[in-house]
Amino acid sequence: MADINSQFDIGVTTGPIRGSRKIHVGARTGSGVRVAMREIDLEGGEPPVRVYDTSGPYTDPEAQIDIRQGLPALRREWQLSRGDVEEYEPREVKPEDNGQLGPDRSGGVPAFPTALRRPLRAKAGGNISQMHYARRGIITPEMEYVAERENLGREFVRREMDGNSWGAEIPEFVTPEFVRDEVARGRAIIPSNVNHPEAEPMAIGRNFLVKINANIGNSAVASDVASEVDKMVWSIRWGADTVMDLSTGRNIHDTREWIIRNSPVPIGTVPIYQALEKVGGIAEDLTWEIFRDTLIEQAEQGVDYFTIHAGVRLPYVPMTARRVTGIVSRGGSIMAKWCLAHHKESFLYERFDEITEIMKAYDIAYSLGDGLRPGSIADANDEAQFAELYTLGELTKRAWEQDVQVMIEGPGHVPMHKIKENMDKQLEACGEAPFYTLGPLVTDIAPGYDHITSGIGAAQIGWYGTAMLCYVTPKEHLGLPDRDDVKVGVVTYKLAAHAADLAKGHPAAKVRDDALSKARFEFRWRDQFNLSLDPDTAEQYHDQTLPAEGAKTAHFCSMCGPKFCSMKITQEVRDFAAKQNSDSYLAATAPVEGADEGMDEMAEKYREGGDLYMPAK
Amino acid sequence: MADINSQFDIGVTTGPIRGSRKIHVGARTGSGVRVAMREIDLEGGEPPVRVYDTSGPYTDPEAQIDIRQGLPALRREWQLSRGDVEEYEPREVKPEDNGQLGPDRSGGVPAFPTALRRPLRAKAGGNISQMHYARRGIITPEMEYVAERENLGREFVRREMDGNSWGAEIPEFVTPEFVRDEVARGRAIIPSNVNHPEAEPMAIGRNFLVKINANIGNSAVASDVASEVDKMVWSIRWGADTVMDLSTGRNIHDTREWIIRNSPVPIGTVPIYQALEKVGGIAEDLTWEIFRDTLIEQAEQGVDYFTIHAGVRLPYVPMTARRVTGIVSRGGSIMAKWCLAHHKESFLYERFDEITEIMKAYDIAYSLGDGLRPGSIADANDEAQFAELYTLGELTKRAWEQDVQVMIEGPGHVPMHKIKENMDKQLEACGEAPFYTLGPLVTDIAPGYDHITSGIGAAQIGWYGTAMLCYVTPKEHLGLPDRDDVKVGVVTYKLAAHAADLAKGHPAAKVRDDALSKARFEFRWRDQFNLSLDPDTAEQYHDQTLPAEGAKTAHFCSMCGPKFCSMKITQEVRDFAAKQNSDSYLAATAPVEGADEGMDEMAEKYREGGDLYMPAK
Repeated sequence: MADINSQFDIGVTTGPIRGSRKIHVGARTGSGVRVAMREIDLEGGEPPVRVYDTSGPYTDPEAQIDIRQGLPALRREWQLSRGDVEEYEPREVKPEDNGQLGPDRSGGVPAFPTALRRPLRAKAGGNISQMHYARRGIITPEMEYVAERENLGREFVRREMDGNSWGAEIPEFVTPEFVRDEVARGRAIIPSNVNHPEAEPMAIGRNFLVKINANIGNSAVASDVASEVDKMVWSIRWGADTVMDLSTGRNIHDTREWIIRNSPVPIGTVPIYQALEKVGGIAEDLTWEIFRDTLIEQAEQGVDYFTIHAGVRLPYVPMTARRVTGIVSRGGSIMAKWCLAHHKESFLYERFDEITEIMKAYDIAYSLGDGLRPGSIADANDEAQFAELYTLGELTKRAWEQDVQVMIEGPGHVPMHKIKENMDKQLEACGEAPFYTLGPLVTDIAPGYDHITSGIGAAQIGWYGTAMLCYVTPKEHLGLPDRDDVKVGVVTYKLAAHAADLAKGHPAAKVRDDALSKARFEFRWRDQFNLSLDPDTAEQYHDQTLPAEGAKTAHFCSMCGPKFCSMKITQEVRDFAAKQNSDSYLAATAPVEGADEGMDEMAEKYREGGDLYMPAK
Repeated sequence: MADINSQFDIGVTTGPIRGSRKIHVGARTGSGVRVAMREIDLEGGEPPVRVYDTSGPYTDPEAQIDIRQGLPALRREWQLSRGDVEEYEPREVKPEDNGQLGPDRSGGVPAFPTALRRPLRAKAGGNISQMHYARRGIITPEMEYVAERENLGREFVRREMDGNSWGAEIPEFVTPEFVRDEVARGRAIIPSNVNHPEAEPMAIGRNFLVKINANIGNSAVASDVASEVDKMVWSIRWGADTVMDLSTGRNIHDTREWIIRNSPVPIGTVPIYQALEKVGGIAEDLTWEIFRDTLIEQAEQGVDYFTIHAGVRLPYVPMTARRVTGIVSRGGSIMAKWCLAHHKESFLYERFDEITEIMKAYDIAYSLGDGLRPGSIADANDEAQFAELYTLGELTKRAWEQDVQVMIEGPGHVPMHKIKENMDKQLEACGEAPFYTLGPLVTDIAPGYDHITSGIGAAQIGWYGTAMLCYVTPKEHLGLPDRDDVKVGVVTYKLAAHAADLAKGHPAAKVRDDALSKARFEFRWRDQFNLSLDPDTAEQYHDQTLPAEGAKTAHFCSMCGPKFCSMKITQEVRDFAAKQNSDSYLAATAPVEGADEGMDEMAEKYREGGDLYMPAK
């Protein structure tokens, strides 16, 4: 077994995100729930800006971070106080869980060193899903947390419902009761495996802020467990709302344990990947028993949502044969091969209700996988894709019969004019269950830039109603992302999600934009950096042209220079205007030589308008 | 005077874009017009893919490049043969043209070393605009060139009109007559100053492929003229359809000469910048005479389109006083200041018809500037912006009265739900004159990533009908772009423009996507790289994970590895399917245990479908 201490030389990324403070806001219900946020202090007498914070305790200078201990079990008390769970002896970890790693673990990562809590599950026949509580009218602390978290500083700003939400029902103010109702109706989920009490509750739904997911996976040689954990920590630092662990090969059980114990965000997986490992990579050898055992294994560890490709049905497989890019989903192709090899309907589809029984005992959410999603523009919105989507709709309703939370995965590669059809059909087929899409990429011709080709599609489908966007990095289709790629992918998706929030008209979404633009206009460079999604890059780019510290307070920028500055000229225009009294203002805007009827009309308008000028400071 | 020879140490970027060949296609009219394109050869017996080529002779191994000579005067013969132009003695270059550079030119770039052609202009009272010819029913060689260039290999592929063009009238096939008609109606322009015969004709219009513009500007110390020229060469290498020279300060006349003499794409400028230099940066000191003289100066050099901020009228200026970011356009703020300082209507507006007289004598196109464009989400679509837009519409019609070509500049910063209104109002106000927008950025919170925030908006507004997209680099709002930033900006806009072409349903736009996706699916890695907008980056990213040369022919990729490859599994699915005869195919897809009505229907469908499988190879 490797020396544990040697694993922590590099540690994980900690420390505040520059220019912001961690704050904890008590829920106004007085229940004692405290919600983590960040606040950005500004210069020039401007009020601080409160921002949604996914980064967990890692950015809190007060927090003690030791990844060998894991994070505090924030939700543990809430769970136990409900009186509907039982501790039990877990399933024993087997060599095949870690890719046939022997008992001496040579070449493997160490097991998580702190004694694990015994797993919890619903008492026999029970149901501990947030949806189940919601449908019985219970507002959980998780729902309270979400309400406070989504509101941010909404009550402090003038609420503007300026947007087009395409039929979403975004409230002016998020109450715990609103959250409960959305979860009860299946329009939002709060992924919250009872065995992941470390997670800070968050909601995925069309009437909440658009969320993003980052995928991580283990390295071929996973000897450095801190760097595996840091992939998650790094992703959430820049804004990932959930993280999917797509590891394959050796060490995956142990690596997953390390990640979940240290993750303040929900963790998703695709259990079929691990099941396939257990049968040596031979899809035909998969069985329901092996798959079921893998679900229990991961359920006990605390995975919050499972991608289940139960919509890849036998009759849909031939629909893909004429595609340009066939089946590009790994899970989808595994199940397609299984179906054809056995000439049988998918066991995921056949055993769906049994899977649901497991989900409800731990409160794991479904992420119904789109195994037949298009892998190219040519294959978008085809028969195979939509046949599967309607099956996912059918399965959604079956999961809901057992009060199990569901979201639906979506494409993929879709040209812009076909994106909205995806959203419309999903809403129709799946009863407004949250949509969770991968991009989509709007063209295939820019490998190396697919964070952008997909960010374009993601912003649009997010606007149309997609609740969570799965990120794409610049390395998509080409190689494995490194640390920089992950950051670029996360920030790109964060800006796409925010653009969607703005367009949907989320109250207060514009607060940060307006604060940043005002800072820009007033040459408060530090505020401009600090309000950015990526303050480090913003400052670094600035300093490449004007490195002097003085330039950060200079009333000009590098684009025009000190003499030739449009913002400076505008300020002069304002000052000039401010000097005028109302009379000379009218003189300035009254018709002059050459004025035509259009100008007369405009001048009339100003007269009506009255005090159009800014008051002098 | 600096030693000319020392200027050429670094030269400009030449050589083929990897994986493609320069070809010249003769116009099918038999007129002798030969159109430059690139062709990408593929492996596996796939036909080559023809792509639009903006890179000029620089990527042609046959071409002799010497920037001291400039490019061949491609259009000269066409111009002279029309018999409607005259050579004349040019205006004398003055010290203020180069920022008061003295006669010894110390600290300046050298003058262009080859004797300049005497300028051409229309014979007295004449009009040599492409619009003028078009309206008299004349199909010029420029129009023929454009027709061939826009078609690419359109006739070789199955034409699919799959898209939503929002009312554009995109033809299945572009004929010279179609081009003439579009230019005559003002729906497209062919920027083509008679004094820039080096330019390869191109069209900007809603019914043609979406174009992109890159901005360049001189360095503070412009002693190295080759690097100034290379900014243009580098931009067009990656796909810039036009280049705007936004230089200020010293040397701008001479730098511009070097750029135009070496540019195969139209060059645009904002003449008010240079005029302001001539009055020492004091906006109030600008006069019509100085401005007019600057127009003549640049007209004689060969600038193809002028940004003229004639829509910034006196009465609109106060409308901006309450904005979050006031006036952010440099040209707009200069004119606003002039108007307020003099309490007079803008001389650009008042003298508009006189400016038009100049434009038609050289065939310079208007790019009517949006001096009041929003500089933040908060200011989007406000009264000031649209007041100016309607004035631009009025000016468009006035320019058209003299058969002068016009495009209209647009924003800026606009949240997604307000983008379409910009396009709709522009079409209505400006009679379908081409729209040319800067982005728009869909959020303000991501400095350092504004090529992406704006690429999202650019793709959308391009889809809605914008004819040309002005690029934004990652350094926007922060600093001056370097070579890498320019490339990233150009490629980002190229992919946004292409995404718009796909969504509009341009025939054959999908050819490149499909070829690349097929190559991807068949693991033809080299083809995948070569078909990319940026083959170098694609290969570099691939090699970071799988550097071995053998990996470029490997039938797997780094995302899944050799054992676990969804594309490989799909191929197995196909092979498996191909082995089945029709009977066993039906058996495979017929209802199985647990089948419900839905499956019966699906199975029925396949029976109707017949040979859904790919034939075995």
